[in-house]
Amino acid sequence: MNPQHVIALAGGVGGAKLATGLQAALGPDRLTVIVNTGDDFEHWGLTICPDLDTVMYNLAGIHNPETGWGRTGETFGVLESMGQLGGEDWFRLGDKDLAVHLRRSEWLRQGATLTEVTDRLRRALGVRSVILPMSDSPVRTLVHTDEGDLPFQHYFVRLRCEPVVIDVTYVGAASARLPIAVEEALRHANLIVFCPSNPYLSIDPILSMPGLRRRLQTHPAPKMGVSPIVGGQAIKGPAAKMMREMGMTISPVTVAHHYQDVLDGFVVDMCDAHLSDQIDMPVLVTDTIMTDQTSKQRLATEIMDFGAQLRGPSSAPAPIQPQNLRSPAP
Amino acid sequence: MNPQHVIALAGGVGGAKLATGLQAALGPDRLTVIVNTGDDFEHWGLTICPDLDTVMYNLAGIHNPETGWGRTGETFGVLESMGQLGGEDWFRLGDKDLAVHLRRSEWLRQGATLTEVTDRLRRALGVRSVILPMSDSPVRTLVHTDEGDLPFQHYFVRLRCEPVVIDVTYVGAASARLPIAVEEALRHANLIVFCPSNPYLSIDPILSMPGLRRRLQTHPAPKMGVSPIVGGQAIKGPAAKMMREMGMTISPVTVAHHYQDVLDGFVVDMCDAHLSDQIDMPVLVTDTIMTDQTSKQRLATEIMDFGAQLRGPSSAPAPIQPQNLRSPAP
Repeated sequence: MNPQHVIALAGGVGGAKLATGLQAALGPDRLTVIVNTGDDFEHWGLTICPDLDTVMYNLAGIHNPETGWGRTGETFGVLESMGQLGGEDWFRLGDKDLAVHLRRSEWLRQGATLTEVTDRLRRALGVRSVILPMSDSPVRTLVHTDEGDLPFQHYFVRLRCEPVVIDVTYVGAASARLPIAVEEALRHANLIVFCPSNPYLSIDPILSMPGLRRRLQTHPAPKMGVSPIVGGQAIKGPAAKMMREMGMTISPVTVAHHYQDVLDGFVVDMCDAHLSDQIDMPVLVTDTIMTDQTSKQRLATEIMDFGAQLRGPSSAPAPIQPQNLRSPAP
Repeated sequence: MNPQHVIALAGGVGGAKLATGLQAALGPDRLTVIVNTGDDFEHWGLTICPDLDTVMYNLAGIHNPETGWGRTGETFGVLESMGQLGGEDWFRLGDKDLAVHLRRSEWLRQGATLTEVTDRLRRALGVRSVILPMSDSPVRTLVHTDEGDLPFQHYFVRLRCEPVVIDVTYVGAASARLPIAVEEALRHANLIVFCPSNPYLSIDPILSMPGLRRRLQTHPAPKMGVSPIVGGQAIKGPAAKMMREMGMTISPVTVAHHYQDVLDGFVVDMCDAHLSDQIDMPVLVTDTIMTDQTSKQRLATEIMDFGAQLRGPSSAPAPIQPQNLRSPAP
C-alpha cells in the first residue's frame, strides 16, 4: 500500500484537535487538512479566517487550549486601543494573532490566493502538514435566525449564538471552485476523515463546494466521520442548540444520517454505544473526548485502524445509501 | 483683535513639543497644526503617518516622552509575532499605535481623505486642536545619498541616518494640492509658527506644497520660526549631520536664511545669542529647550508675545527679502 495520506475535513476546535492527533500519528507530510472558510470575514479592514487559524495554531502547538481560539501567551494591546478609538471590539483579536491577519491581508491584496497565503503562513509557523482552505473565493456562512439573516461571526461571536436558527446557507458556494490543491490532495488520499466539527457550520460549508460531495461519494478511500455530539451534547459550540432549533434529535445518529451518502464508517463515543445499531454503516465505539495530546493521537490511530479495516484487501467503496439531508433521526 | 488663531507647521518630535505648548497657552480650538506627511509610508499593508501621529499623541498626552515616537505604556506583541512570520520588523510599530494605523488604513480604503481620517482620529483621542496633513495625496520625501535614493523611513529608521545626504526631494509634491482645510485655516490665522523641526525633512516638504510658500509670503499674520539648531547641534534627529553633509554651516543663522523669504521673526536659543546679529530679521533670544510642560508652554507664550509685537498696531507683513535657498550662512 502507498504511504498513508490522510485528508481531514475540519472546522474549528474539534477539527483542530483531531487534526493534531492525526499529524502526531502520521508523522510529517502525510496529512492534508481541508478547512472551512465559511466563518471568514472582514474586520478592521483585514481578512480573518478563524478556522484556518485555529487549525494552524493547533498544528503548530501555539494555540490557546483554554479559549479554544487564538494563540497562547496572547496580549490584547491593539484591541484595547481600538476600543478607545471607537473601533469594533466585540471580536477579540489578539496581538500575536493579528500579525497573521496583517500578513494574510497584505498578501491577498497583492494578488496571492488564500491557498498560497495559507501555505506561506503554515510554513512560517513550522507546520509540517498541509492546510488548505476549501475555497479561494469568498464563501460566507449565513445563519437564518428568528432575528434575521446573520453573517456567521455576528451570530457566533457578537450575539453569542443566542438567536434561534432556522437554516444555514453558504453564500458564494454555488459559484466557487474547488482549489486545485484540494483536487490534488483528493487524488492521493487513502483515508478521509470528517472531524468532530459542527455539521452545519463547519463541515457542510466544505461539502457545499461544487463537485466535492460527488467526488467524495465516488472516492475509493474509506470516509470516516466522528460525531461532534456526545451524550446528547455538543463538546463545544452551538451544534446541539442548532439541532434542537431545527427540529432534529440531538444525537450521533442524526449526524451519521446527515452524512449517510458520503461516509463509510462512523465513530461515536462510548457513552453513546447504545445508539450504534441505529446507524446504517460500520460504527467504531471509543472514547472520543480529546483532552490532551495522548488522547488526540490515540483517537486518530483508532480511526486510521478502523479505516484500514473498512478498506480491507480491496479498495471498493462501501455501498451508498442516500438519505434526505437533515432529516430527524428515526 | 480676533481671537488668536495660530497655525503651527510641524514635523515630528520638536514640532509636537511646541504644538503642545501652543495648545496649552491658547486653550482649546485655537490651534491648527499643519503636519509633514513626507515621512508617510506603506508598511504591513497599512498607511503609516509618523509625524501626524507624533503630533496627535503629544497633543493627546499619550506620547512616549522617552523614545520621542509612539505611545506611552506601549507593547509590541504584533511586532514580535510579525518577526516570527518573516515579516518586516525593522520599523517598531507598537500595538496601541497599530490600532491607529488600522483605523486610518481602513477608512482610507473606504474612500475618506487623509484630512478626514486625521480629524476622526484626533477627535477619538480627545484632541481639541485641529491637526491637518499637508496633503491628501501622497508626497514622499526621497533622500538622495551616497548609497542611492532612499525612501525616507529607509534612510531614517532602517539605516539610522547613516548614509551621507546629497539632496532631498519631495516626490508627488508638484502634482499635489493644498487641502481645502489648510486653505481655510490660513484664512483665519493671525500667527504662523514654524516649529523647531528639521528644515529639510519636516518643514520643506510642507513648503513644497504648490502655492503654500507664496501664500505664506503674502500672508498678513506674523510668521515666526524657531531654530532646531542649538549650540551647533540638532536637539534631535539628523538636521546637523545633514547640514554638514550638504556643505552648510551648522547654525541657527543657516536655518534663518533658509526661511528668509517667508519668516518675519526668528527665535534662537540663549546659547546662540551671539549669532543673532547675523540674522536679517527680528530675533527673539530665549531658552528654547522644551523638557517639560512648563517649558513648552513658556516658549509658546514667548513666541506669541513676540509675534504680537511684530504685528504691532497694523497687520502689514514685514518686508520680504528673498535669499538663495540653502545657501551657507555668511
